[in-house]
Amino acid sequence: MEVKVAAIQFACSSDVNENIEKADKAVREASRNGANIILLSELFERQYFCQERRYEYYDFAKTLEENDAVIHFSKLAKELQVVIPVSFYEKDGNVLYNSVAIIDADGTVMGVYRKTHIPDDHFYQEKFYFTPGDTGFKVWNTKFGKIGVGICWDQWFPECARAMAIDGAQILFYPTAIGSEPILDVDSSGHWMRVMQGHAAANLVPVVAANRIGIEKVEPCKENGMQSSSLRFFGNSFITDNTGAIVAKASSDTEEIIYASFDLDAIDKDRLSWGLFRDRRPQEYEGILR
Amino acid sequence: MEVKVAAIQFACSSDVNENIEKADKAVREASRNGANIILLSELFERQYFCQERRYEYYDFAKTLEENDAVIHFSKLAKELQVVIPVSFYEKDGNVLYNSVAIIDADGTVMGVYRKTHIPDDHFYQEKFYFTPGDTGFKVWNTKFGKIGVGICWDQWFPECARAMAIDGAQILFYPTAIGSEPILDVDSSGHWMRVMQGHAAANLVPVVAANRIGIEKVEPCKENGMQSSSLRFFGNSFITDNTGAIVAKASSDTEEIIYASFDLDAIDKDRLSWGLFRDRRPQEYEGILR
Repeated sequence: MEVKVAAIQFACSSDVNENIEKADKAVREASRNGANIILLSELFERQYFCQERRYEYYDFAKTLEENDAVIHFSKLAKELQVVIPVSFYEKDGNVLYNSVAIIDADGTVMGVYRKTHIPDDHFYQEKFYFTPGDTGFKVWNTKFGKIGVGICWDQWFPECARAMAIDGAQILFYPTAIGSEPILDVDSSGHWMRVMQGHAAANLVPVVAANRIGIEKVEPCKENGMQSSSLRFFGNSFITDNTGAIVAKASSDTEEIIYASFDLDAIDKDRLSWGLFRDRRPQEYEGILR
Repeated sequence: MEVKVAAIQFACSSDVNENIEKADKAVREASRNGANIILLSELFERQYFCQERRYEYYDFAKTLEENDAVIHFSKLAKELQVVIPVSFYEKDGNVLYNSVAIIDADGTVMGVYRKTHIPDDHFYQEKFYFTPGDTGFKVWNTKFGKIGVGICWDQWFPECARAMAIDGAQILFYPTAIGSEPILDVDSSGHWMRVMQGHAAANLVPVVAANRIGIEKVEPCKENGMQSSSLRFFGNSFITDNTGAIVAKASSDTEEIIYASFDLDAIDKDRLSWGLFRDRRPQEYEGILR
């Protein structure tokens, strides 16, 4: 099966409807250009609110059934017959998660994956907002192939990619929100790409990552403890082939849609011919569970 | 602690003593240039005999105590005060392994690691020669830092790198023998580098890989079932930093020694600052043991 994937890169405003409208236009364009699976970035409904800690932001979380983006893109997926993973802030009873709803090409919401690995750095204060996910790593048998979806920080963990590949994922997707590190003053974009290129190379699956761009500022005020900060999201959304080679890449500061096509049957054969899954030694891997 | 590592790349002849002599000269040169840990390629005592299946090649295997290269480089390590992992064909009772002896800077043979993952392709017929290793992944507390050593095919498995990193490895080493694929007709050198760059990036440890070069031919004869083949080993020995960026690389066809220096304490701090080991979720990794 020949599948065309797209990754959408844009800057997010503070207006939910505006962001959904922007994403809607981009998804329609990607579909017109033949994309079957279309990846949006992480938590694209809003600016990256985890830059500061505010109790009132807990109100952003909604159930799967009530989330605006999930409702919107479920309809659009059905209309365009495309698969769309939708990242959103999920409320389940009293517990809040960083989740992604997988929407199949008939508009069905297949379920959610909840981000397993939650970062916690000066301006990526996600442990304040999200409980570590309880769904485990999942593979989704969509109309356009079996896909695995991790969320941002998950992309740094080989275990996540490996678990999805073992379960039969044919392409891995990572909605992302990553940028500058105001304290560390390091450009991690190359590092960020290499770790995912490694997942592709080790598991012989293409990888698709969609990141946001733009500068998002936090002004000092009493409610945030007089914090002042600014993140520049570094874009660089990219797609690799099943050897980890980058086949499409966006810039660090422009709104773009990137594309790549893959013959999933040919890649499945190539994966078997390498013998890597044949030669695994799970009985030797207990150390990974430490 | 500042540590300088070196990877030695050369072509192997069919004469054991000649290869040991060549390796000896290169190790002395690397030491003169300040290297503390010096990596030789996989099974450098001989041409890559796994290209064909011959029962008489089982005689190449010797015990740790009797192997010529281990004896030789144990003395040299003591003389030069350098750490040398020595790849060799090991006989232990009736079982034969693809092993590496870790020699500390005082000449002590610290022990062996036995290759966990054994390939089996048309001209990499290692399952005929080697039983999969039974030592598990190991970390060696040498005079120049804690090192992990995998062997060739192990380098394609994220589990191996991850297990060594979890156990505290500060640098990962991979003695290697890889080249062309006469049947598949694919150049896997980029793929090979990317998978290890991924290990470095995910585990925040430098990676050092030493490969051989040269064309090694097998002539058809009754004893090998009239097989005829030829492998071109593709060199490209390389060293990455702890983000997976390549900081030194050899060519595909010249004899070379490459070097890089690392401040292991600074890298340890950097690793902690990323929080990746903090945010692991081992209880979610059972799927890896499948």
